[in-house]
Amino acid sequence: MSEQILRPSPISASVDYDEDGVQHGFLSIPYSHDESAWGSIRMPICVIRNGDGPTALLTGGNHGDEYEGPIALYNLAASLDPATVTGRVIILPALNYPAFRAGRRTSPIDSGNMNRSFPGRPDGTITQKIADYVSRHLLPVADLVADIHSGGRTLEMTPFAAHHILPDKEHESRCRDAVMAFGAPFSIAMLELDAVGMLDTSVETLGKTFVTTELGGGGSSTPETVAVAKNGIHNILQHVGILEGSPKPADTTWLDMPDGDCFVVSDEEGLVEPCVSLGQDVKAGEIVARIHRIERTGTPPTDYRAKRDGILIGRHFPGRVTIGDCLGVLGMKV
Amino acid sequence: MSEQILRPSPISASVDYDEDGVQHGFLSIPYSHDESAWGSIRMPICVIRNGDGPTALLTGGNHGDEYEGPIALYNLAASLDPATVTGRVIILPALNYPAFRAGRRTSPIDSGNMNRSFPGRPDGTITQKIADYVSRHLLPVADLVADIHSGGRTLEMTPFAAHHILPDKEHESRCRDAVMAFGAPFSIAMLELDAVGMLDTSVETLGKTFVTTELGGGGSSTPETVAVAKNGIHNILQHVGILEGSPKPADTTWLDMPDGDCFVVSDEEGLVEPCVSLGQDVKAGEIVARIHRIERTGTPPTDYRAKRDGILIGRHFPGRVTIGDCLGVLGMKV
Amino acid sequence: MSEQILRPSPISASVDYDEDGVQHGFLSIPYSHDESAWGSIRMPICVIRNGDGPTALLTGGNHGDEYEGPIALYNLAASLDPATVTGRVIILPALNYPAFRAGRRTSPIDSGNMNRSFPGRPDGTITQKIADYVSRHLLPVADLVADIHSGGRTLEMTPFAAHHILPDKEHESRCRDAVMAFGAPFSIAMLELDAVGMLDTSVETLGKTFVTTELGGGGSSTPETVAVAKNGIHNILQHVGILEGSPKPADTTWLDMPDGDCFVVSDEEGLVEPCVSLGQDVKAGEIVARIHRIERTGTPPTDYRAKRDGILIGRHFPGRVTIGDCLGVLGMKV
Amino acid sequence: MSEQILRPSPISASVDYDEDGVQHGFLSIPYSHDESAWGSIRMPICVIRNGDGPTALLTGGNHGDEYEGPIALYNLAASLDPATVTGRVIILPALNYPAFRAGRRTSPIDSGNMNRSFPGRPDGTITQKIADYVSRHLLPVADLVADIHSGGRTLEMTPFAAHHILPDKEHESRCRDAVMAFGAPFSIAMLELDAVGMLDTSVETLGKTFVTTELGGGGSSTPETVAVAKNGIHNILQHVGILEGSPKPADTTWLDMPDGDCFVVSDEEGLVEPCVSLGQDVKAGEIVARIHRIERTGTPPTDYRAKRDGILIGRHFPGRVTIGDCLGVLGMKV
Amino acid sequence: MSEQILRPSPISASVDYDEDGVQHGFLSIPYSHDESAWGSIRMPICVIRNGDGPTALLTGGNHGDEYEGPIALYNLAASLDPATVTGRVIILPALNYPAFRAGRRTSPIDSGNMNRSFPGRPDGTITQKIADYVSRHLLPVADLVADIHSGGRTLEMTPFAAHHILPDKEHESRCRDAVMAFGAPFSIAMLELDAVGMLDTSVETLGKTFVTTELGGGGSSTPETVAVAKNGIHNILQHVGILEGSPKPADTTWLDMPDGDCFVVSDEEGLVEPCVSLGQDVKAGEIVARIHRIERTGTPPTDYRAKRDGILIGRHFPGRVTIGDCLGVLGMKV
Amino acid sequence: MSEQILRPSPISASVDYDEDGVQHGFLSIPYSHDESAWGSIRMPICVIRNGDGPTALLTGGNHGDEYEGPIALYNLAASLDPATVTGRVIILPALNYPAFRAGRRTSPIDSGNMNRSFPGRPDGTITQKIADYVSRHLLPVADLVADIHSGGRTLEMTPFAAHHILPDKEHESRCRDAVMAFGAPFSIAMLELDAVGMLDTSVETLGKTFVTTELGGGGSSTPETVAVAKNGIHNILQHVGILEGSPKPADTTWLDMPDGDCFVVSDEEGLVEPCVSLGQDVKAGEIVARIHRIERTGTPPTDYRAKRDGILIGRHFPGRVTIGDCLGVLGMKV
Repeated sequence: MSEQILRPSPISASVDYDEDGVQHGFLSIPYSHDESAWGSIRMPICVIRNGDGPTALLTGGNHGDEYEGPIALYNLAASLDPATVTGRVIILPALNYPAFRAGRRTSPIDSGNMNRSFPGRPDGTITQKIADYVSRHLLPVADLVADIHSGGRTLEMTPFAAHHILPDKEHESRCRDAVMAFGAPFSIAMLELDAVGMLDTSVETLGKTFVTTELGGGGSSTPETVAVAKNGIHNILQHVGILEGSPKPADTTWLDMPDGDCFVVSDEEGLVEPCVSLGQDVKAGEIVARIHRIERTGTPPTDYRAKRDGILIGRHFPGRVTIGDCLGVLGMKV
Repeated sequence: MSEQILRPSPISASVDYDEDGVQHGFLSIPYSHDESAWGSIRMPICVIRNGDGPTALLTGGNHGDEYEGPIALYNLAASLDPATVTGRVIILPALNYPAFRAGRRTSPIDSGNMNRSFPGRPDGTITQKIADYVSRHLLPVADLVADIHSGGRTLEMTPFAAHHILPDKEHESRCRDAVMAFGAPFSIAMLELDAVGMLDTSVETLGKTFVTTELGGGGSSTPETVAVAKNGIHNILQHVGILEGSPKPADTTWLDMPDGDCFVVSDEEGLVEPCVSLGQDVKAGEIVARIHRIERTGTPPTDYRAKRDGILIGRHFPGRVTIGDCLGVLGMKV
Repeated sequence: MSEQILRPSPISASVDYDEDGVQHGFLSIPYSHDESAWGSIRMPICVIRNGDGPTALLTGGNHGDEYEGPIALYNLAASLDPATVTGRVIILPALNYPAFRAGRRTSPIDSGNMNRSFPGRPDGTITQKIADYVSRHLLPVADLVADIHSGGRTLEMTPFAAHHILPDKEHESRCRDAVMAFGAPFSIAMLELDAVGMLDTSVETLGKTFVTTELGGGGSSTPETVAVAKNGIHNILQHVGILEGSPKPADTTWLDMPDGDCFVVSDEEGLVEPCVSLGQDVKAGEIVARIHRIERTGTPPTDYRAKRDGILIGRHFPGRVTIGDCLGVLGMKV
Repeated sequence: MSEQILRPSPISASVDYDEDGVQHGFLSIPYSHDESAWGSIRMPICVIRNGDGPTALLTGGNHGDEYEGPIALYNLAASLDPATVTGRVIILPALNYPAFRAGRRTSPIDSGNMNRSFPGRPDGTITQKIADYVSRHLLPVADLVADIHSGGRTLEMTPFAAHHILPDKEHESRCRDAVMAFGAPFSIAMLELDAVGMLDTSVETLGKTFVTTELGGGGSSTPETVAVAKNGIHNILQHVGILEGSPKPADTTWLDMPDGDCFVVSDEEGLVEPCVSLGQDVKAGEIVARIHRIERTGTPPTDYRAKRDGILIGRHFPGRVTIGDCLGVLGMKV
Repeated sequence: MSEQILRPSPISASVDYDEDGVQHGFLSIPYSHDESAWGSIRMPICVIRNGDGPTALLTGGNHGDEYEGPIALYNLAASLDPATVTGRVIILPALNYPAFRAGRRTSPIDSGNMNRSFPGRPDGTITQKIADYVSRHLLPVADLVADIHSGGRTLEMTPFAAHHILPDKEHESRCRDAVMAFGAPFSIAMLELDAVGMLDTSVETLGKTFVTTELGGGGSSTPETVAVAKNGIHNILQHVGILEGSPKPADTTWLDMPDGDCFVVSDEEGLVEPCVSLGQDVKAGEIVARIHRIERTGTPPTDYRAKRDGILIGRHFPGRVTIGDCLGVLGMKV
Repeated sequence: MSEQILRPSPISASVDYDEDGVQHGFLSIPYSHDESAWGSIRMPICVIRNGDGPTALLTGGNHGDEYEGPIALYNLAASLDPATVTGRVIILPALNYPAFRAGRRTSPIDSGNMNRSFPGRPDGTITQKIADYVSRHLLPVADLVADIHSGGRTLEMTPFAAHHILPDKEHESRCRDAVMAFGAPFSIAMLELDAVGMLDTSVETLGKTFVTTELGGGGSSTPETVAVAKNGIHNILQHVGILEGSPKPADTTWLDMPDGDCFVVSDEEGLVEPCVSLGQDVKAGEIVARIHRIERTGTPPTDYRAKRDGILIGRHFPGRVTIGDCLGVLGMKV
């Protein structure tokens, strides 16, 4: 495909990325709409810099109903002492900020799923404009990018960090080292089949070190999952040399998700009865969940069974399920 | 207050409450609306009877986003063998059925909170019509009523069963025995300050034995909380003599909620950082949760502290909180 | 019940009911809302009077998605020459005017079903205020009331006029004569089991002659069903002595709806395949409609059969059906 | 236009198009949204194959409020014996499945009008993804495509089958023969002025035989219109050699729609009084419909007249009309 | 009417009305809903007290889209020094707080118009609960009540203060003196025809001195109208003896609104062309506004004329108007 | 950019642009949607022509909540005598007609902001289709284009006309002369930084003389602002030679908006207290507006100050403000 000349981004930053110290500011996204003819969206950004050194870009709220990332990053922004930093930390605690304000996976303005909107467009939707700004202004200056996801309101995951299986093995190895440094209870090497539109892909295309995570879900968080996020972020900042010291050796279990048999998908609408706890071992053939019809009593539930041995690393969260929903995800110990 | 002559209920049942065997049927509630001029709502009901004996009325889905009750009761309806029964079990797995179909606390038809709609009205809203039918046709024939609640989409609770502190101590003692039989991990004797509109009050006014519960929440369920519901229901059916055998002695912790200091309420809107895990011990003065402002980074979070020593038995579930929301609930060991 | 002193109606009429000639005016209903702080609803009314004589009150649009009545009545108001009248005709072409403007069965303002809102309240909802005005200002001055219904958007009916079976047989006989005069293709004597809230009941309580109809449906009309409405209204105005001449003898088929077996109700959600045409004879056991599940192919449809011999006089209109919807209505020839 | 390299479709089929026998399966369309982070839409598909031979692709529900096609095709899928087949029948009973589930013309997910979305895009909206899958995976393997339309909720049509006037007269002749075989009461040769985005155009561009229909409407169906669909589909399967036998000679009336004078369009908002029945002959100058203003009585209605002699083959269905709506469509006998 | 025993209010105050000094607190209104099972609404209240003396209750935001009252009262609460006070000032800057948060006239929770909800009900809607708390807990302890209204989003008014014409002339005279003290540019003695449900009526029934106002509108405010509110409130606090000094003699124009001819009401839907400026003199017969039809050009607009000589004291604000909207209000100089 | 071959516009006009006299007609935009399968939007257009001469294209309602343009243009279309015209006037009183019907800035159909949709697309959204028709059919035949804006529902502006600073100084001078002729109270030469998508840009790209305005706002209009529109339009028609005579010399104040310091933007959500009146002089450092937090009383408001000396030429209109909204706009006297 030919190079396309893009318009400049309409987004402006109130922070100076090259200034030392702590800056709490905004990305201003012009937004002319029925409720404000000359309005804009002001999305929080924090830059903490101390001289030359590596740059880490830390993002949460890529989906607006995932909370461990934002909690860890608002805390980090409020507490990180620049004197302890070598180089620079750029923090976007809520990447899809309109979605985050609404507590929704996607943007209430344009229904945009941020992680399907990269590399974005300067003249596109609000979601695409944010993606474009990140792609053209922040990714190029970053050495390491960590994007803290959780399962969101409709999924719950055992806490894991992950890297992708990449064509460039040196690149993959850098990412794997960062995942190891993060030190989540579980770690996964993922093969992304359809990576179009993801932040991950935009980062990796630039050859940058990338860590992604899934740290809990259900649209909530716990002290335990928040601790995983806080520790993991501290660890990778040490790992990349921005903070002093080195992360303590990770006690993580490496998992694999080799093919589509890892997913248990519902063919029915109904009431979910979970039969396996998250993080528990499962044998092939074991019932993972049962679906009850709700329209009448006396109908036997349908059993959904594991197609492989593994660990239940993800599960449908809401009590009601519809056709095509993911009921469970299995990981296999490496 | 003077006796009021009420119209007959417009609801009709397709089951015969006095027939032996298993019947899976409907309560039909006439509902003329824009999408169906001569429509009705068909709400599932199951009656399992074997000769004379006590009657238990078991209800779930009083709030439509609470799942342990419906799961246990659809299972019970599909599996209970009438030959093992003495007397009668009447099962309403989803008491606010329109709310349950929508996965909402309240009814999408009339915004009715079922547990504020008792004793109901035959010429009221759909929610009030259901409450009225239950009040006039089912409560009078029941010896024991168990209403299985959870925290719903916005609260999460440690699993407990509860009875109310009642003026008639013999009545309270009967209820307490049933709670003990239910055998949840925690048990509570509650003093209801504003009991108007609750199913609980309608049941207790008739002098019937009543058990209520809170078994989890977040709009989901787990194998563990479902097991509490299933076992508890089996236990009280034994306790009341409908099933043979007697419940195994309960290993439950009795708690108290003496006053308003048990509740931690938010004075702010923001992002919740939970600092104490559900079921964990808390000391007075300890931080239960922190609220982060989301509009900008760099603002220190506000700490919300326990006003008493206790156990965290309930917590706000969604990652976002608004002013007036309940952040945490403490119970005190008796 | 004791007499209740009601406040005066807040509704005012721009017409003088005692003035001779044709008046096209409004009922003004004060309506303070977000879009108009000091607004009002102006509902069309027409009074055509020529000296002393009987008064007919003619209403359409009791449900806002039924069109034969409004079409016939807007035509009548635009064309009736007062010189041909003896007495008075009061025309409300769209009784639930907010519903009619929206093309909905019920009011978009308050979800009010007009035919469940009588006798209304002067301090109630907009729907109840209209009902109250009609009850206290128009019904008392009428000798004959004709309320022209159709099936609405969700039902289709063979055209019939009807009266109720009433305790006062002289009263019933007057109503039956008016139905006979109306001269619809079918005529029915109905036993209303739950008549609370209906205009019908308010009219009959005052001992007035009352005709109701069902003339088509589906949220549309045809030249044929409009002609039934126009002719029927002309006929009863002759019958009551307001217009000269007498209605030509009706060629109508009298039907009966003796009990609940006349209704075929769906126990399922799905796609409706109609198997009997409206107005066609059906034998007990014959398939009236079949419901196909839409989630997957290859599932056999469920057959819904007639429980009696009869004529199909009503049918569910939309292609999709849900549990509790009325699939078909049978009438039995007398 | 230059060839564009398209990404593979993200849609996967659970059926094997080359396997003999009957398969009832799904097309799975990944759909990550607020209610299901890792969800998908499962759209029913049926493949019935018996050895080599021609392939017919049969589609209904291109618009989700048109019911004759889905009814005939769910029936066909549930009843067609592969032993009677030579070649292959691929059935998509509800092409815009999200629209069909909602009973709407267009998709509730993306407002997509399926018949303006061809040839689609693999990275577009859900509607465009379905169109793309059909364009690239199903149309190329089909010999004959029949797409069964009706008028939908807002139009009613006399039942007709149609082909387009095409530049390749052999191609047109093949299509005309198939229309003749279908044997609807009316048949039309249509000149499509603006064919961009239609399934029709995608099929015809590939030189495939194509039949389209309009079989009723109003968002409902009747035994008569369903029979036209069932018979017509059976006939073209015989015509194309998939079923044995040959269709009985069609008793169809051929019509023409030469220009814009065939359409009667409303310049006003109001209440529609239909003056001509569907299928009835009309003379130029005759009133087809009248529009009544609803805001006040006493205003004479506006007459809308036919501009040509013809047959009324289509009409506005709802009782209310707005400016720019099509009130009537005339066909001229050839 | 007989005395009705009402339940206690479920609303609790965090302020002590009898404590000296400044207290900024909340009224907590329990509100269990889908987004917060155990939630509440916290409505701001301020009490400023200094020993014994008169009590003034000052309210704004009775309708949520009226801003002069809230601006003046948030300022007063933030700045009033208790040392300058004799007695007590109770400030509710936003009486219909849910409506005020939404910028709407009525509550988004229950559509309640606060000024039609008095005296309220403790077991009613949220709006009725607030009205009930004010009626039973605040009005009885107040000597003077001032309720600061403006025209809201849909009306604009010349700034005036007003009292009602009351049966007790001593009472009316007290109110009139307070209006005179308020010192708005215009002052009006109003005859309320339908006073049911108003705060005004609840206050006057208790014999308390009452001032109401209309100070601008359009859903906005100006420095001038805000100054009228601030000065007026200061003046009446002096007048009632809570603040020292006496209000400077008012330069106000007294007006009269003798009958319905003061109102110009639209009989049409369309685009409003205002022809007279707010506050300008008008002669009977003069055009106040013209309505243009928007559906087509070339239609002459309809003129709406004054029925009396007077001053234009109110006007429809939005550019579009519908049937029954108030186009203009005239006041007559006394 | 390469030339792109565009499809013909699907929009058809009922007027003949080359016919002498007055024509009131429609642009018909095909619009197939759920409420009308074969529907269209009919947008009013007026052409007034008298022989050869210049062509003026006059547009209002580019944003649907701005009223001075539509009022002046509906009046002009209804009153302009072609005998007084030399050449041609084409009037589109409501350019974003769907938005105008809804009283919204943007289209309710596709959320399109018309002034960000140029040059449009024939196969795009409804908003883009209108822009495309104007771009390809009307702009090329116009000599002068005047687009009458106001501030809309969320902004209020002092009345001004404006031209852009353009690279071709002769072109700019022509535009400046037209602005001078328009004769608004204020006139501005604007430097548009992000002109993509504006009608302005499409006009200027063709080298046509262009005048834009901002004449009031708040979603309303006044006799004064309407007079500015009417006079201004009359003046430029004289200026361009379509009407006889020459505009009387303008008494206008020329202003400048040199940089971003002209804008005062809110960093907070809250209640706006305006401190400067529109059109008033402001000194650098002076408070323009204050924001009060509404959640509690007693919090001091935040002051927003002018960064330059100037005149307040624009202000936020609604009483509530959110982060990123424009609170005020300053112009500097040249």
